[in-house]
Amino acid sequence: MSDFAQYVPGEYARKHIRITPTKLADGRDFFYLDDDPEYVSGARTRELKDPRPLAYRFANQLNAAGEEVPYAAPEMRRDPLTGDWIPMATARMNRPITAGPGATAKGNPLAARKPGDPYQDGEVPDVDYNVVIFENRFPSMVRVPDRSDAVTYVDDNPLWQKKMAVGRCEVICFDPNEHGLPADLPVSRLRTVVEAWAFRTAEISKIEGIEQIFPFENHGAEIGVSLAHPHGQVYCYPFIAPKMEQELKHTEAYHERTGGNLLKDIMNAELDAAERVVMRNHSWVAYVPAAARWPLEVHVAPVRDVLTIDELNDDERWDLAQMYSTLLKRGNAFFDKGDGKGMDLPYIAAWHQAPIRDPRRENYRLNLQFFSFRRAANKIKYLAGSESGMAAWISDTTPELIAKRFHELGPIDIA
Amino acid sequence: MSDFAQYVPGEYARKHIRITPTKLADGRDFFYLDDDPEYVSGARTRELKDPRPLAYRFANQLNAAGEEVPYAAPEMRRDPLTGDWIPMATARMNRPITAGPGATAKGNPLAARKPGDPYQDGEVPDVDYNVVIFENRFPSMVRVPDRSDAVTYVDDNPLWQKKMAVGRCEVICFDPNEHGLPADLPVSRLRTVVEAWAFRTAEISKIEGIEQIFPFENHGAEIGVSLAHPHGQVYCYPFIAPKMEQELKHTEAYHERTGGNLLKDIMNAELDAAERVVMRNHSWVAYVPAAARWPLEVHVAPVRDVLTIDELNDDERWDLAQMYSTLLKRGNAFFDKGDGKGMDLPYIAAWHQAPIRDPRRENYRLNLQFFSFRRAANKIKYLAGSESGMAAWISDTTPELIAKRFHELGPIDIA
Repeated sequence: MSDFAQYVPGEYARKHIRITPTKLADGRDFFYLDDDPEYVSGARTRELKDPRPLAYRFANQLNAAGEEVPYAAPEMRRDPLTGDWIPMATARMNRPITAGPGATAKGNPLAARKPGDPYQDGEVPDVDYNVVIFENRFPSMVRVPDRSDAVTYVDDNPLWQKKMAVGRCEVICFDPNEHGLPADLPVSRLRTVVEAWAFRTAEISKIEGIEQIFPFENHGAEIGVSLAHPHGQVYCYPFIAPKMEQELKHTEAYHERTGGNLLKDIMNAELDAAERVVMRNHSWVAYVPAAARWPLEVHVAPVRDVLTIDELNDDERWDLAQMYSTLLKRGNAFFDKGDGKGMDLPYIAAWHQAPIRDPRRENYRLNLQFFSFRRAANKIKYLAGSESGMAAWISDTTPELIAKRFHELGPIDIA
Repeated sequence: MSDFAQYVPGEYARKHIRITPTKLADGRDFFYLDDDPEYVSGARTRELKDPRPLAYRFANQLNAAGEEVPYAAPEMRRDPLTGDWIPMATARMNRPITAGPGATAKGNPLAARKPGDPYQDGEVPDVDYNVVIFENRFPSMVRVPDRSDAVTYVDDNPLWQKKMAVGRCEVICFDPNEHGLPADLPVSRLRTVVEAWAFRTAEISKIEGIEQIFPFENHGAEIGVSLAHPHGQVYCYPFIAPKMEQELKHTEAYHERTGGNLLKDIMNAELDAAERVVMRNHSWVAYVPAAARWPLEVHVAPVRDVLTIDELNDDERWDLAQMYSTLLKRGNAFFDKGDGKGMDLPYIAAWHQAPIRDPRRENYRLNLQFFSFRRAANKIKYLAGSESGMAAWISDTTPELIAKRFHELGPIDIA
């Protein structure tokens, strides 16, 4: 272990990355991830604590009548018609929005602290950083100490189960430069982002009550990103999310029928078919899935059998950073406005990894599902009646057309 | 039967409404629905045929090289990871868009024909109408005569089933006034829209290969409505849509467990709880479901056990029109910009009715799911990572808060 591996909770530690844990003023967990051999952040943490006079995050709050009421912890209710759990987080109504037409706050809470800056509510105590991770100040899921998470019923009717939404929501800042795009970050910095995903997966897997860890990135004001700073999130659900449940059902049924792993066989079938493979390196294959539902969709699968991000070895992490970088750059070039300059593509990058405890996890396999709502330089695909009302996606293109466009943008072999 | 009931295909006919069938120049079905005792439309149809020189819609087309190729009929592929069928309709890429920033066409193809108008590609041949229904010119699902709908495989790999998307897509124009909002239409006109939903449900149920009929309304440029004219659509899927499949699984399991009908028991439980009931009349109950996932969501259920819209009797149709009208008006008043004037609410109105053939249909029950993406006067809920990537909805509000706001807007008893 190098000098960098200062933080070894539950054996989690990597070379090349220094992880420095701290707490924000309201008690939330905060981690600095340094990839620079020089100290960039965290070392000064003892002196540079979060200077805000924030109340303990689970403290009682004042209601409209000025009375003290318990912290409005998010609860969730189970929809009897679909079986889905719906977390309800009314505190999120008031979160700051600094991007787009509904902006309610100035300043950037994800920037490093600048003493003298008029924005006094930044989340990063230190004055510089590489990558930071912290618990969301406005979580849609969180465990509140000493609060029971037993199932009860809405209106005492067993049709309507409810319980505390005892999950966890974290934010990952990819870089201190608030105007940078993830596509423009050096591969070495994206490598640290991969490390952040792996670190949080390893650590959060040990937290009681969490069933699925979902690292993702929302990018672009067109899809409602409320903070322009380059960042991603980790949602940790106390249930198997509906889409993952659907996938587990199919990977499990496939295994029972054939003895094989569906996701591995899909990857190999795409390699055999070749037409929809858009990128390859030593550790990863990227392809447009044969039944793609989005106007731009790419799945990225590891060559080796891997269940979760934290199982990736060092080579696979570097190769992933390289492929992610190339994917983002080509994504930005995908839609041509006619000036050959490409555009800042709005996208969602969704990590599908094996759930923590569900026994079906063994027949799943790690994969990244990357997609965009954009369907032309000046057009967005909206999720209207068919998609939002019936979950029936309609594509206006074909996977082969998407792949053809990617092939115009660079070689398949990126190693 | 009154004089109005001129069209009696498969016994479908109603008093008060005159249905006049015709065909558009490219062979698509077109229906005039008159609610005015005077002839408004259709009677002149023999003289006023569609004047456009359109080719037969399934005719061969010219490709980029100028060669004749078969009509690019939409196909669909089955996603092996989720089991979902994804229709792929490349012809829709070029459909005209007359609303919003990506507008590609001027004129309004849903307006009645105005001789002398520069827009020469209108869909309505007659010079006036009440309500019209016609097959979508750019369907994402359609049966092409003599084209096989057998299952084959993408790249000959049985992992990837594909077949023709032999469904049907129809458009319903609610009123000839292109600037009118559905919320401002008289109840008598909305009554004709109900009739249109019922008429199409009854007729299309007889078409081979259709499994589910989904009347819906997308309203508002914010959710990507490409034509501002007040209109709805009917999507007829050759499969059970994923959301309906999920609901059928739960209604069936509930019936097996309790002998009851889940949707009926939910309605009665909402009536017992009372807090979330927002409207009632003789035939319908509207409530915010106890696990609502949208920032504004109302479900509307018939008091009587009804499986599909065409089973509604005359009183129920009138009462539905009255409730729909009140729902739309209160929806527009829901978000206060501070000037007390309300706003044109973007919404999706999704009809969930029993599927046509699936044996689980008997334990389902008709219901309308009405919801909006709007979460404040100046804020939209976007379907980002959790919703789009994992189908895990997060609510920023509670059903009780939604209902409370509705209660401020008018009495529950609207009969």
